[in-house]
Parts: sequence; C-alpha cells; structure tokens
Amino acid sequence: MSILVICLVFTSIITNTLSLTQEQENDRITALPGQPEVAFSQFSGYITVHKKQGRALFYWLVEAAAPNPLLKPLVLWLNGGPGCSSIAYGASEEIGPFRINKNASSLSLNQYSWNKEANILFLESPAGVGFSYTNTSSNLKDSGDKRTASDALKFLKRWMSRFPQYKYREFYISGESYAGHYVPQLAQKIHNYNKNHHDPIINLKGFIVGNAVTDNKYDNIGTVEYWWTHSIISDTTYKTIKNSCNFTSPKYNEKCDNAINYAWNHEFGEIDQYSIYTPSCNKSSGNVTLSRLKNTLVRRRVSGYDPCVERRAEKYYNRPEVQHAMHANYTRIPYKWTACSDDLLENWKDSQFSMLPTYKKLIAAGYRIWVFSGDTDSVVPVTATRLSLSHLNLTVKTRWYPWYINGQVGGWTEEYDGLTFATVRGAGHEVPLFQPERGYLLFESFLAGKNLPRS
Amino acid sequence: MSILVICLVFTSIITNTLSLTQEQENDRITALPGQPEVAFSQFSGYITVHKKQGRALFYWLVEAAAPNPLLKPLVLWLNGGPGCSSIAYGASEEIGPFRINKNASSLSLNQYSWNKEANILFLESPAGVGFSYTNTSSNLKDSGDKRTASDALKFLKRWMSRFPQYKYREFYISGESYAGHYVPQLAQKIHNYNKNHHDPIINLKGFIVGNAVTDNKYDNIGTVEYWWTHSIISDTTYKTIKNSCNFTSPKYNEKCDNAINYAWNHEFGEIDQYSIYTPSCNKSSGNVTLSRLKNTLVRRRVSGYDPCVERRAEKYYNRPEVQHAMHANYTRIPYKWTACSDDLLENWKDSQFSMLPTYKKLIAAGYRIWVFSGDTDSVVPVTATRLSLSHLNLTVKTRWYPWYINGQVGGWTEEYDGLTFATVRGAGHEVPLFQPERGYLLFESFLAGKNLPRS
Repeated sequence: MSILVICLVFTSIITNTLSLTQEQENDRITALPGQPEVAFSQFSGYITVHKKQGRALFYWLVEAAAPNPLLKPLVLWLNGGPGCSSIAYGASEEIGPFRINKNASSLSLNQYSWNKEANILFLESPAGVGFSYTNTSSNLKDSGDKRTASDALKFLKRWMSRFPQYKYREFYISGESYAGHYVPQLAQKIHNYNKNHHDPIINLKGFIVGNAVTDNKYDNIGTVEYWWTHSIISDTTYKTIKNSCNFTSPKYNEKCDNAINYAWNHEFGEIDQYSIYTPSCNKSSGNVTLSRLKNTLVRRRVSGYDPCVERRAEKYYNRPEVQHAMHANYTRIPYKWTACSDDLLENWKDSQFSMLPTYKKLIAAGYRIWVFSGDTDSVVPVTATRLSLSHLNLTVKTRWYPWYINGQVGGWTEEYDGLTFATVRGAGHEVPLFQPERGYLLFESFLAGKNLPRS
Repeated sequence: MSILVICLVFTSIITNTLSLTQEQENDRITALPGQPEVAFSQFSGYITVHKKQGRALFYWLVEAAAPNPLLKPLVLWLNGGPGCSSIAYGASEEIGPFRINKNASSLSLNQYSWNKEANILFLESPAGVGFSYTNTSSNLKDSGDKRTASDALKFLKRWMSRFPQYKYREFYISGESYAGHYVPQLAQKIHNYNKNHHDPIINLKGFIVGNAVTDNKYDNIGTVEYWWTHSIISDTTYKTIKNSCNFTSPKYNEKCDNAINYAWNHEFGEIDQYSIYTPSCNKSSGNVTLSRLKNTLVRRRVSGYDPCVERRAEKYYNRPEVQHAMHANYTRIPYKWTACSDDLLENWKDSQFSMLPTYKKLIAAGYRIWVFSGDTDSVVPVTATRLSLSHLNLTVKTRWYPWYINGQVGGWTEEYDGLTFATVRGAGHEVPLFQPERGYLLFESFLAGKNLPRS
C-alpha cells in the first residue's frame, strides 16, 4: 500500500471518529432544567428508522454512574401500553436517575436508579410514542408488534453507529407490561439478525420483564382468578366469567362481555388497579377512562399507573426548555407530549397471541431470561404470569423459596432450566416505583446472573 | 299488705340496690397506670362460673364515651386462639380505648375505639385465658367449644346481676379468628336460653365476626387457594395439596402432611402471615413457634398477630400496679399473664367441624349477622370465608359493591338474606389493628343496621 493510500485511510478514520464524536456530542444533555448535579453523562436525540415515511425514534441514554461506565453493560428499557413512553414511566417513575418534583419544574435523585449498575437506554417506541414521531400519519393507525420490533432493531443498529463504544458491549433488554411482547420479540429479532451476520455488534445476553403480558388465554384465566381471590369481584361474576368466557377466541360472547363489563362498572370501584392496596390518585386528577393494555381482558377501564405522577411528567416534558435541553421535538410535532398515545393503543394492528413459543426459542438459544411480578397488581397479575409460564413446562432447577432484603421477605423465586421467575412482595404493576429497593436488588441479581438471596 | 311487710320489702330493695352498687363499685377502675384522662367509666373483675371447680372469668367493661352510655348498646368482644386474650388483642391492639406505649408503662388514646358507639365488654374466655383462672388444673387440658360457650352464658347472666342496668339492653357479640366458633355458639346458647325463659334479660340482637374460622373443609380449601394466588407457595406444593389433602378427615395423609410442612418450612418465609404485606416484627422478639389456630391447616408454624405489640401487653399486664388497678390476679395465679395460653391451644378438646349449621339456625331466627374479612390475612383468609359462606346458599339481597371511606375503597360488600359480608381492603387478621378507621366504620354500620356507604 502506498503512503498516500495509508494517509487517506488514516485521514478518513480520523474524520469519521471526529464526526462520530460530534454526532454524540450533539446529543449530549448538558443539564436538564432543575436537575441536581450528577456524576454521569446523558445523551438524547433521534434515530431515523424509516426515511421515506419519516419515522424517527427518540432515546435517552443515562450512562452508568460508576467510575467507569465503559465496563458496565448496556440495558435497554421499554414500557408497554401499547403506546406508553419509557421516559414517562421507566425513566421518571421507575428505574431512571431522576424523579420529577411536585412543582414539575425541578428534579431530585432516585436512590435506586438502575444506572448505578448499567448504562440505561430509554427508548420511546414505537413511532407515535412520546417524542418519537412519524411523518406518515397513517403510521399511528397501523402500528403493531411487528413494526415495533423491526423499527427497534433498526434503531439499535443505527444508534450503535452513533455510539460505537457500545458495540459488542454486554447488552440486555428490560421492560414491563405490554413490553412483555416487545422485549422477547426484539430479542428474537436480534438473535436472528446476529445469526445471519458475521459481525454481531449487538451482544445480546438476555432480557428481564416485569408484570408482562405473556399469553392471552392463560393471562386472562389467571387474571380472573386474581380478581376473585383478591375480593375485587363477586362470586356471581367470577362464576359467569369462568363458565362463559372463551379466552382463546379474539371476540368474546355477549354473556362473557356483559359479566366483565358488570365487574368494571359495578364491582371494581375506584381502586388503583395497578396497585390494589395503595390509595388511588384523586379521581379528578387524570383521565382514567381509557385502556392501556390490549390483549388482556376486554375494555380495561382504567389507564392505571399513577395518574398523579403522570401529570407531573406531562407538565415537565412539555416545557420548551426541557425539550430544548433534550434535543427533543425540533420538528414541532403537532400534538403535545403525552405519557401514553391513545391513538396507538386503540388502533394496534397485530399482536402475538402468545409469547410462549418465542420464550421456547430464546430459552433454547441460551439467553439469560428473568420474569418478575409485583404481586399487588391486578392488571397483569402474578397469577396470570405464573399460569402462563407453567405452560412452558420447564424443569425446576432451584425450588420455590422466599428471597430476602433487609431481613424481610422481598418476594419469592423459582429457577427453571432456562428461566428465572421472581415475585416482588407488595409491589404493583410498576415494580421499581412501588418497591424501589426490592426492584433494584432484583436487577442487580439479574445482571450478576445470581439467584436472589436466601437471607 | 301490712305496713310492716311493705317496709320490709322496701328495705330489702334498698339493701339489694346498695349492695349491687357496691359490687359494681368494687370493680370500678379508678385509673389504669399511665392512663390519659377519659370521659367514660371502666370496670373489671371476676365472675365465678363454676364454684366447685373454681372457674372464674375476668372481664373489662369499657363504657361508651358518649354523653349517655345508658342509651348505647352493650357489645361483647371475644378473641380466638383458642386460648388468646381479649385484653391482649381486642382491648389493647384493636377496638379498645387505649394503646400501650412502647415503654409498656403508659397508655395513649385510640382514636377509633369502638366505645365511641357502644359499651364494650372484653371477656377473657375460657378459664385459663389471661386473668381468667380455674382452680382445677385439669380444666386447662379439657377445655373445648362446649364449655367455652356454656361458661360464657353463665358469665353473662351473673355479670348482668352485678350490672343490672345492662339487662334488656340491646346486646351484640363480636370477635375474630377462632371466635368465629365462640361468637355464633354463644349466640345460639343465648337464643336457646331465652326461648326457655319467660324473662330474657340478655337482649341479643345479633353478632359480627372477622376473619372467622367457619368451616374446616371450605376454610382449608380457600386457604390453600389464597396461598397460591398470593404467591406464597410453589405450583408444586399447590398441586400436591390440592390432589392429596382430604380436608374432611380429621387426620391428613402423609403426602398432604408433607406438602404442608414443606410449605411452612421452605416456602412461606418469615412474612407476617397475619398481614402478608406489612413488615414482620423482628424474629428474635417473640415466640413464633406455636400455633394459635386450631381447625385450620395442620401445624400452623407462626403464632402471628403482632408479637412486637404482644410483648408490650405482656409487660404491661404483668405489672403489679396494673393488676391491682384492674382487680386482677388477686388469687395469685401460679403463672404469668400471657397473651395466649399454649396449654389451652394444644389440648383443645372439642371443636365444631362447621359453623354453617349454627349460622343457618341463627339466620332463621332473624338475628343481625355480619361477617367481615381483612383481605391481606393468610391465616383465615378472605377466600376461605367466601368459600365457606357460599355454602349457606343464601339469596343475594344487595349485589357485591365497593364501599367507600374518605373517597377510597374501604373494601367490598354483599348483603344476603340474613347475613351481610364485607371485606376490609388492606387489612390483616386483626382488622381494627391494621385498618382502624375502616374497621370503625364497619362497626358503626353494623350497629346502625345500615349497608356500608357506596361513596
């Protein structure tokens, strides 16, 4: 090779590196409005996933707080809905470094932020969620599981071009609720992609999901069981649902439909279905009329999560200075940033009936897979998850036992060949919101590949 | 009638009244050590129920705090076990006017004391419980449901001779746990007694029981259901118990026994089984090895209630000045006052298999009957009670609905022809301890004979 060629190649490498660095630097968050001082870096911005249709996904990377984030794995977090924002929930109420204060103009630190252990990548997925947008408005009406997964894979590849230091890094996917679909689906996409490429830059090691939608039939049966055993519904309604509902068919018969509607309208009452023993947020404070969970029982009436906390996020992330600091919404999306998109939820096109076949494939491929469940959630309850997982017919490796934190039972766990199941005692749908310390220990143990402590 | 005779009769009435008053006055509690000032009267002392065997029952009457206690009903409170003290639990942790402070030497007021609505009579029952004693030591080994009920009836008749102002007063019985036996059994005793006497001084109107042992078979089935749906036990244990336990037989087969033992020893963990989501008291703080509930699942491992609070009661009521103020233990019982008597529990002789036939008779007799259930108790759980009551096959009068207090769901309720069932959301085994305000509203509604509020 001539010196000229060598020099040209060298120059090109330098230029690329410089422009890469510049691209990253453009996404750096100097500081969020009202943010306390922190010892970690943050980046956020857009990755285009479909040029022609103008779909771009918004991300927020919170690097690990530890001395050297380069040695820590990368963890993607996804919220469910479908249509809910990982920034509204995951980042701001659950595992993120900040909590939005009551005034919705300042932030405080979350002692149990998962970025103490890993670099956390919050993704607003699919397009139409939060700051993620599409220039093709029909995209809001024809989104579904499939596009969500393929856009997410595109996102990851392109994001790693912008952040090449994360290529080949240990990578995990995490999420909750309807992300019980997204997470294993994306894992499988990556798995297939890696199999067909000689240089697998996405070094997927496994995934962890909480209160996860898993199998329509078993989830629904388990949910009705939960309602009765937690005294939410009457004997009459329980019996009618059990005798008349066929949860394998996509449409329910009238008798089943009526019984479920009766339960919603006359029996449930204004409890927080996502955390049945905590006081529910003042009724007038949020829109609690729409469903945020497809593929579970018909017409879930209450939006759930904590509408009081949601409202703070909806104030904070709509502030122009916040959007400016996050490099968000520079295309001027014609609607406000919301915690969940009802458009997406109501028009969800394709939804996998059961994730169990996907689990089977990923278990066979040897990924680390953990499923957890906050046991005071009535929306995707622990009975639903247990019933669903039991149909994987896995061999028990470590028998059911209570795990401990600070001398108290944090929950129960059982390790199967290829999957670990754990409950979190007294936690609602959003485990890290209701039991932050227990949720954090769970995440730590997952990352370390260690069973939860017996004392 | 001659003047002489009239005079003699008159003198005798005066003498009787005077001596009656004196007898009551002897029982008056001037003030308990460390007690805050109060505007109601208290009495305590002994009523002999079996002279020959030397059985005497200890009572504590807390009169209604309202301006005129004479207009308020009389409510008897009984704790379960069998062998546990109504003073240790009912009076000191639940519905009584005082709470024992941490130092175990002073008392503070309970804002939700039931004596705001009624005159509350705490009875230590049967002999051998708390301050109640027997001079026939074999009595501690041959107590059972039958003697408990007949001694309690004798107690009531003799107590009313000492407190004649309570004769013909509206009278209710209340209690929890194993008092699910005592309460309806005593109600039936009174009912039968009243039928056979022309002057029924005990004006029984009804009863109310919480987390009540009701029917061995259905309670046990419902309890195992609760364990699984509340994630306390494994799928394996659940299936083994369901398939191998025959809860109609008094002795369990080995497979069933082993499965239950395995659950206790390896699966439950150190949760507070009487309130599964609250932190449990420090292990070293109490004797948690013995059972306090017969006739439910074999060998309950944990004594339950709150051993931390129990310990305070065991300090306070053993203080000589407290016993003096209460006119207790003047016969110098050769053992310490304890919250529960393990002797009685372990040697309980006769126990009714099912209370359902008794319920049927009392319902037919038209008494006001309420059954309530704190829904986070795993010992006599809500699923057990619901399953048991469902076998009464009662007609629904007011369909299942959520009841409210301070804008929050306090629980759910359903009114049947002859019985009202109500749950208390987020309450453990001792409802008034864990949810005092909700428990108080329940009691108020029961006394008023009104359904729980719909908003």
